[in-house]
Amino acid sequence: MNSTIRAFAFDAYGTLFDVYSVTALCEELFPGHGNALAVLWRAKQLQYSVLRSLMNRYKDFWEVTIDALIHAAHQLGLDLSTTQRQRLMGAYLTLATFPDVRPGLESLKALGLRLAILSNGSPNMLVAAVSHAGIADLVDLVLSVDEIKTFKPSPEVYRLVESRLKMPLNAVGFVSSNSWDVHGAGSAGLTTFWIQRRASEPSEELGYPAAFVVHTISELARLIR
Amino acid sequence: MNSTIRAFAFDAYGTLFDVYSVTALCEELFPGHGNALAVLWRAKQLQYSVLRSLMNRYKDFWEVTIDALIHAAHQLGLDLSTTQRQRLMGAYLTLATFPDVRPGLESLKALGLRLAILSNGSPNMLVAAVSHAGIADLVDLVLSVDEIKTFKPSPEVYRLVESRLKMPLNAVGFVSSNSWDVHGAGSAGLTTFWIQRRASEPSEELGYPAAFVVHTISELARLIR
Repeated sequence: MNSTIRAFAFDAYGTLFDVYSVTALCEELFPGHGNALAVLWRAKQLQYSVLRSLMNRYKDFWEVTIDALIHAAHQLGLDLSTTQRQRLMGAYLTLATFPDVRPGLESLKALGLRLAILSNGSPNMLVAAVSHAGIADLVDLVLSVDEIKTFKPSPEVYRLVESRLKMPLNAVGFVSSNSWDVHGAGSAGLTTFWIQRRASEPSEELGYPAAFVVHTISELARLIR
Repeated sequence: MNSTIRAFAFDAYGTLFDVYSVTALCEELFPGHGNALAVLWRAKQLQYSVLRSLMNRYKDFWEVTIDALIHAAHQLGLDLSTTQRQRLMGAYLTLATFPDVRPGLESLKALGLRLAILSNGSPNMLVAAVSHAGIADLVDLVLSVDEIKTFKPSPEVYRLVESRLKMPLNAVGFVSSNSWDVHGAGSAGLTTFWIQRRASEPSEELGYPAAFVVHTISELARLIR
């Protein structure tokens, strides 16, 4: 069906790595507030990345994630010590990998496709996460927005795949569980695949819905064979 | 103290007009879900305005507000009819005005200051809201981002006051209850005043906190006298 697809670029956070796997440590440090802290931390991280991009005040994703954690703790009335902050940020380097990631990537690799990661994460964060997930052998290229100093969904971010993979945009399938990220990539000209990780989750209303909707990475190989 | 301030530019939604005054109608239409719908609608409205700006896919605030309402209803599992959507959007044209607005603006006007509104709102929305609030006699200039087709916190938005009020940026006090908006204006060079409408609300962590923090618009005149 999509015989034109010659490579896949994957979003990292929420797509390959489970950002809510920090919830257990949040709960250990702040009993009764773990879930609220993990959810607000993630929401603020995304909000700050977009606001800073629009303000032309880029700061790398590690720093943005620290700022988001500090604000989330304040907003919930939690007193965050330096040690607690460091432990929580450390957890961001060893996020859990979703179970469909390794088998899904292997099945795409077996079809001869090139595989890349295209992420807001800073290079250090991505090196740590890929290593912890044990998928370095399956990923040909790790692209961080840090080389252009703006975050998703700036079109410049998605166009990185063209210059770095040396392929036309529409030959690259972009895969994300974040619906807004899918709309951003679609608006920039990529062929988009939304991993709808929760069945009840509606698409965002941003004008560029996914070309394909799947529930696991393992479904992608069947779609393009 | 701030004798250099010769004009004030006010954010509209959340600062002059209470965006949560739609909650009663939300509750009437969707009993038990009114508060959740009003909160998510507002959050999505802001998120979509920023995401669309970064995607270079501007749509005016009226359209963005409709998209946000549609998504919020979907996400909460509510079945939103065309009539219900039209009633809720109609409520956005007649939002309640905070009680400190008229006395606060009058006290600034009495000091000979020029007063403007600088808002994400589309021109039609702002005309309706100002008229409904009965403050047209106090506002010298209503500036909408629609003339430059990008939303806050793009620096271009805040710089509109320079060309349209014909004053240097630092002679204009920017007033908003939205902390991220304050950071955006501060980053662009304006003197910023944060109306902290809820005492427990922490500032965002975006690097440009308010020069002054107040709790009502009525406090501004005392600060600059």
